[in-house]
Amino acid sequence: MASIFSKIVRGEIPSYKIAEDDNYYAFLDINPLTQGHTLVIPKQETDYLFDIEDDLISGLMVFSKKIARAIDKAIPCKRVGVAVLGLEVPHAHIHLIPIQSEADISFSNPKLKFTPEEFEEIAEKIKKEL
Amino acid sequence: MASIFSKIVRGEIPSYKIAEDDNYYAFLDINPLTQGHTLVIPKQETDYLFDIEDDLISGLMVFSKKIARAIDKAIPCKRVGVAVLGLEVPHAHIHLIPIQSEADISFSNPKLKFTPEEFEEIAEKIKKEL
Repeated sequence: MASIFSKIVRGEIPSYKIAEDDNYYAFLDINPLTQGHTLVIPKQETDYLFDIEDDLISGLMVFSKKIARAIDKAIPCKRVGVAVLGLEVPHAHIHLIPIQSEADISFSNPKLKFTPEEFEEIAEKIKKEL
Repeated sequence: MASIFSKIVRGEIPSYKIAEDDNYYAFLDINPLTQGHTLVIPKQETDYLFDIEDDLISGLMVFSKKIARAIDKAIPCKRVGVAVLGLEVPHAHIHLIPIQSEADISFSNPKLKFTPEEFEEIAEKIKKEL
């Protein structure tokens, strides 16, 4: 069965898309730790990040860098932090999380709530910086 | 001034080395969140991960993958998680953290203590799987 992320890539489930190319797709996390929290995935469905072949994992990092630099410009933060856990959705995904401090990147923190309009606005801000 | 990590690369500060090549260096975190917690760095000193040029950031991911797969074999864990925060040492570094659950990757968790002999033993176990 297709992962929830594959369905997002195919547009069967809506997402707040930031960018895509032939191999990768970036969209806002709908349970964000901080404003601008974005997920980057390879379109090809692989459960575990470190099972991804070298070419594709290299490209994933370069694509993530492009997105992270746009987040950096769009969202007030010290850094864009990175996290990959991989214990929930079986489709490798990189969390890009704008952080002010180390504590911002803890997944046990309460998730932020935004309205659809607020999510759209955040996505637009980031897309403008791409 | 050279970063503490550049001093580690040059052997001016000791480390529990896992592997190195021309561009990258991997060694055990001495304040580990879990057993086998490893840091991977580019030898070239760049503060912010997303300032690293495309070729070097691609290679960093491929090198990290090699290390992560060895950790996977050496250390009982569900996954090797990834984190990059970048707020402390101004030399980009990827945390590879063997995890059983999401909670293992929180940097506010107490750090584990090992003796030098235990660190050596963990490093040897991982190196054997490379």
